[in-house]
Amino acid sequence: QSLAEQQAGKKGVGVDVELTSAIHIDNDTFVQRNFTPQEIAYCSSRPDPTASFTGRWSAKEAVFKAISSFGDIPSQGAAAPLIDIEITADQSTGAPQVQLSGNAKQLAQQAGINNINVSISHSGAYSVAVALAQ
Amino acid sequence: QSLAEQQAGKKGVGVDVELTSAIHIDNDTFVQRNFTPQEIAYCSSRPDPTASFTGRWSAKEAVFKAISSFGDIPSQGAAAPLIDIEITADQSTGAPQVQLSGNAKQLAQQAGINNINVSISHSGAYSVAVALAQ
Amino acid sequence: QSLAEQQAGKKGVGVDVELTSAIHIDNDTFVQRNFTPQEIAYCSSRPDPTASFTGRWSAKEAVFKAISSFGDIPSQGAAAPLIDIEITADQSTGAPQVQLSGNAKQLAQQAGINNINVSISHSGAYSVAVALAQ
Repeated sequence: QSLAEQQAGKKGVGVDVELTSAIHIDNDTFVQRNFTPQEIAYCSSRPDPTASFTGRWSAKEAVFKAISSFGDIPSQGAAAPLIDIEITADQSTGAPQVQLSGNAKQLAQQAGINNINVSISHSGAYSVAVALAQ
Repeated sequence: QSLAEQQAGKKGVGVDVELTSAIHIDNDTFVQRNFTPQEIAYCSSRPDPTASFTGRWSAKEAVFKAISSFGDIPSQGAAAPLIDIEITADQSTGAPQVQLSGNAKQLAQQAGINNINVSISHSGAYSVAVALAQ
Repeated sequence: QSLAEQQAGKKGVGVDVELTSAIHIDNDTFVQRNFTPQEIAYCSSRPDPTASFTGRWSAKEAVFKAISSFGDIPSQGAAAPLIDIEITADQSTGAPQVQLSGNAKQLAQQAGINNINVSISHSGAYSVAVALAQ
């Protein structure tokens, strides 16, 4: 097994848990800085918008950690533009999909990431997301 | 690296969190529709049956999401037969193992999944499970 | 695709959730049996030492499960020396890194594990960690 083959299968992993009540979705400045118009429209249309926004926030954080974990890329801390990690919903299944742009896209490309999968779950007072960069 | 090699290493990921109190294990119809006789015997024999049933429920949901995430297979939503995703306990370690049958097995085979790993954890009021389809 | 190629990309996954209040960090015997001097210094210096110790405990458990999941290695249950799974902080990013020693290192080498990634998250009363053995 060559080094190239080892690297080819390398993955990065990220997890994030959030107390649903921690995300204040009535703070327009916060929402518009972190969520795309498509995300805002989707989450606002859901039965429980606060849970939806929190789930997507968890997913963005998990994806960012997975990218960092994959390539040992220096984190940019609180300044990381989470709006560059967009979580869309598959049209037939509703399953979360990851679309990168801007700085997040550039970091992923530099690291050699081809694909990022993410899964989100809610129960009680919490949202949890796990992402896999591959 | 050929496309076949890239696909060979592809994984799907799924996470599920459940409030332990959300699963009503005294509802026989619910239990028998979602758990196999072996799962029912195992969970009923544990010190905290409700936590065991909830952990296995989380694991089934995480495995289903991991299968969907691997192959972009259309979800069947609430109608997905979770009884087709059986979580057994390794005889020496007690670690959870995944056995697919019926529709779940067919979906996994169509997607080219060779193996599914799952891990379960409990603390306080919650169970969390993460699955990896590979 | 040969069996060697299939095995080459195989991963193990582990998850752990912990109620932050479940870890008693004022129990010196417990802390020194499970955490390295470097971990104790790091966690003690953080704004919320209890959360930091609990997060690292979750990470150790998740890594142990990921190693077991990778290689179907018999677990050693409560006697597993978690101090052999050290979680350090990357100097530039603070991201958790895994350093194995002793028995954990031997198990991972026997199984053919080259690398272990781990991610930790805290919110409200809980810590969650996910590990990937590869």
